[in-house]
Amino acid sequence: MTPTHMTPEEFRRHGHAVVDWIADYWATLGQRPVTSADPPGTVAARLPAGPPELGEAFERILADLDTVLTPGLTHWQHPRFFGYFPANTSGPSVLGDLVGAGLGVQGMLWATGPACTEVETVMLDWLAELLDLPARFRSTGTGGGVIQDSASSATLVAVLAAVHRASRGRWRGEGLDRRYRVYTSSQGHSSIEKAARIAGLGDTGIRTVGVDPDTLAMDPAALRAALEADLAAGVVPAAVVATIGTTSTTAVDPLPAIGALCREYGVWLHVDAAYAGAAAVCPELRWSHAGLEHADSYCFDPHKWLLTGFDCDAFWVADRGELVEALTVMPEFLRNAATESGAVIDYRDWQVPLGRRFRALKLWFVLRWYGVEGLRAHIRSGVALAARFADRVRADNRFEVVAPHPFSLVCFRLRADDRTNAELLRRVNAGGRAFLTHTRVRDRFTLRLAVGSPYTREEDLAETWRLITGAVPDEPGGRA
Amino acid sequence: MTPTHMTPEEFRRHGHAVVDWIADYWATLGQRPVTSADPPGTVAARLPAGPPELGEAFERILADLDTVLTPGLTHWQHPRFFGYFPANTSGPSVLGDLVGAGLGVQGMLWATGPACTEVETVMLDWLAELLDLPARFRSTGTGGGVIQDSASSATLVAVLAAVHRASRGRWRGEGLDRRYRVYTSSQGHSSIEKAARIAGLGDTGIRTVGVDPDTLAMDPAALRAALEADLAAGVVPAAVVATIGTTSTTAVDPLPAIGALCREYGVWLHVDAAYAGAAAVCPELRWSHAGLEHADSYCFDPHKWLLTGFDCDAFWVADRGELVEALTVMPEFLRNAATESGAVIDYRDWQVPLGRRFRALKLWFVLRWYGVEGLRAHIRSGVALAARFADRVRADNRFEVVAPHPFSLVCFRLRADDRTNAELLRRVNAGGRAFLTHTRVRDRFTLRLAVGSPYTREEDLAETWRLITGAVPDEPGGRA
Repeated sequence: MTPTHMTPEEFRRHGHAVVDWIADYWATLGQRPVTSADPPGTVAARLPAGPPELGEAFERILADLDTVLTPGLTHWQHPRFFGYFPANTSGPSVLGDLVGAGLGVQGMLWATGPACTEVETVMLDWLAELLDLPARFRSTGTGGGVIQDSASSATLVAVLAAVHRASRGRWRGEGLDRRYRVYTSSQGHSSIEKAARIAGLGDTGIRTVGVDPDTLAMDPAALRAALEADLAAGVVPAAVVATIGTTSTTAVDPLPAIGALCREYGVWLHVDAAYAGAAAVCPELRWSHAGLEHADSYCFDPHKWLLTGFDCDAFWVADRGELVEALTVMPEFLRNAATESGAVIDYRDWQVPLGRRFRALKLWFVLRWYGVEGLRAHIRSGVALAARFADRVRADNRFEVVAPHPFSLVCFRLRADDRTNAELLRRVNAGGRAFLTHTRVRDRFTLRLAVGSPYTREEDLAETWRLITGAVPDEPGGRA
Repeated sequence: MTPTHMTPEEFRRHGHAVVDWIADYWATLGQRPVTSADPPGTVAARLPAGPPELGEAFERILADLDTVLTPGLTHWQHPRFFGYFPANTSGPSVLGDLVGAGLGVQGMLWATGPACTEVETVMLDWLAELLDLPARFRSTGTGGGVIQDSASSATLVAVLAAVHRASRGRWRGEGLDRRYRVYTSSQGHSSIEKAARIAGLGDTGIRTVGVDPDTLAMDPAALRAALEADLAAGVVPAAVVATIGTTSTTAVDPLPAIGALCREYGVWLHVDAAYAGAAAVCPELRWSHAGLEHADSYCFDPHKWLLTGFDCDAFWVADRGELVEALTVMPEFLRNAATESGAVIDYRDWQVPLGRRFRALKLWFVLRWYGVEGLRAHIRSGVALAARFADRVRADNRFEVVAPHPFSLVCFRLRADDRTNAELLRRVNAGGRAFLTHTRVRDRFTLRLAVGSPYTREEDLAETWRLITGAVPDEPGGRA
């Protein structure tokens, strides 16, 4: 028996059908419930216990998308998906990714995919220009950018390079030889704690720095005190992770002051702008990136708010040599003339895994389809929609907006106790017409509404506000 | 200005064009040079210095694939690409991935994509059945599987869980509190060294164990000696990484003996079958997996030899609770009722990053399109093609086959010195008609030919053998 490979002509036919299915899915997204009400195990129960002995017709597989799959999904591209941060995608991104899947190139070395490497280097330079990032991050100098799967991995890689530097190069050979510490604010992302744990620093390897009670941004005086206390105790400060746009409320840490401290103490500064970095495509929002010239590394996620599907975290370093020195491993089977010439980038040395997909294609497609002006219009649309939503909240004195909303996230709550707010969120989400998530701000339960889908319109926010006000529990708990 | 989002109808039209482009690319692959002869910088020089101000027509973007991109690629899906290990894909894989890109679901938690999580759990159970893996890896017991981006990340995650166990649970909070060691054979993959480095163990955290000189498989006596020596020196053995199908020659480490040692010394056994795991779909090749019931974790890459595009490493653990305990972090913004019920899997706790794509779709499509019999036929075809190629090599007494070839990789060399063999490889690859890579076996330069593309036929190997014999340097160096 010969294997039943799909021929190019079969691929053409079935591929058209899949494209049509996606187009129809997008066109009807707004009519679907945003989330599924099914209990755990519902989708699994619809699947056979094992793989089929013989191959099935493609039409059968495709039909199961509607019967087995979509009823059990949380629809992240839905116009009324307002949870977490957006993970938006777009037509050009999906098509760029499709080309990458078809090429099936493995970009671990320049030699294994010259175009895969070079398009990525150029796209990260384009992005650096688009965001007006400091010149030190460009590949034309000592720096350069690379695509990581996520900001979590970018933070991990930054922490590793920082510890290598702090150890004066002993870390790579000898491992952790003393106690190192990583600093972030109490609002920093959980991935920073996870990066420290993976790096072997343990949860105690993180020092949480206090924030300004109004802005929720890192307090530089508290950072200095933490650095001094650790130095006095013989702990080596390795890295500060500052955030532009925290996950909880999009607070912006004061980079100029933090950067000055990092220079003074010789500590690596990594800036995590996973969500809010995209805002820097708009000149009027670049105040959020002031002080970035102090950073040793920086990342943001085009897969959050810049219309590029997951996974696409853009990560830059000011000194690529330091990063490569920390992470490179060179077995015989990867040796090649191009690498030995020193004239090329081998991105495997910039990341945790060895293998890598041609993810730069989706960036290339997105940046060209939208152009600079199209991307700015997308960001401005999100900021404006969020601002108008915040105005609605402020106009209803049962509610309060609990944090500044410079980007597209609004944090708000009923002027009531936590239980009432949690019940409000439960009711809104249970209807399936919109989806929001929550956080705690100043230790109080707070609703988060994040705008980002390209399909979201003013009427979606108007409907969501009606849903929220209609779901306010009749007898709110005591005023908190 | 409103952003110029691609409408569903535009997506339909452009999507069909991209599908057609890929179908044409695949249909003409065999006529292209496998690799590009262009020097570094050629592709980058074809790209503008920055992103366009205004969006471009999709037709212009698509046209650049042929002019800018494909001339600068290494074509991994080419029928005469025999380098490294295959990274093959297939029509159903590309289409499953396309559906995932269109859905744009973020599968970090069960709640953020119930179907994304449940299809993945079931597909990993299907794969476990397909390979006849030990029952302990099924999700129906204490174990379970997850998709990692690569075997590198699987090894890292296994090492982290192993160190956590070896520390009796102190690692998570306190970090590395003493010296731990990871063991692998001298033929183990470079990602094991990298995992130990990332985990903070340093390059000295790896102990390289000697191999049998004939089979190049790990020598259990040498492993015991290494464990004893470390224990005597106060170093804690944390993990043994055994390999089924080493990267250099596809050697198979003796799992029954290694597993017994791991049990005796209380050490985590991780089995890396990145490439050769796919062979276990065929009952006649399952001898390679004997002893796997001793393993705490196991991985193989459907993205290497099982027609599923990168990235798709399938990773299993025998005790999912241990893995989750090592890696979980729970910030407020991710809290949800399903997680707190304990009834669901949140795959973010099984991996380094937080976010994750819906990668199980491509497995679902591949397993259903091919069926068990179709996948077996693919593996058998690769094994048979490699065996016939090895016969050609053996029939020519200028050459020798230098290692067993139980799977689809053949290691061979001219009976001549290293320089002559390196020159032979250079000449073969320079022609662009075929692509092979090299390794060192018993410290001698050795050519590697790995079969795996679904497009590879007997005539491709016949042509490649003609190219090789025609490229033998006229005056070989002294016999070695």
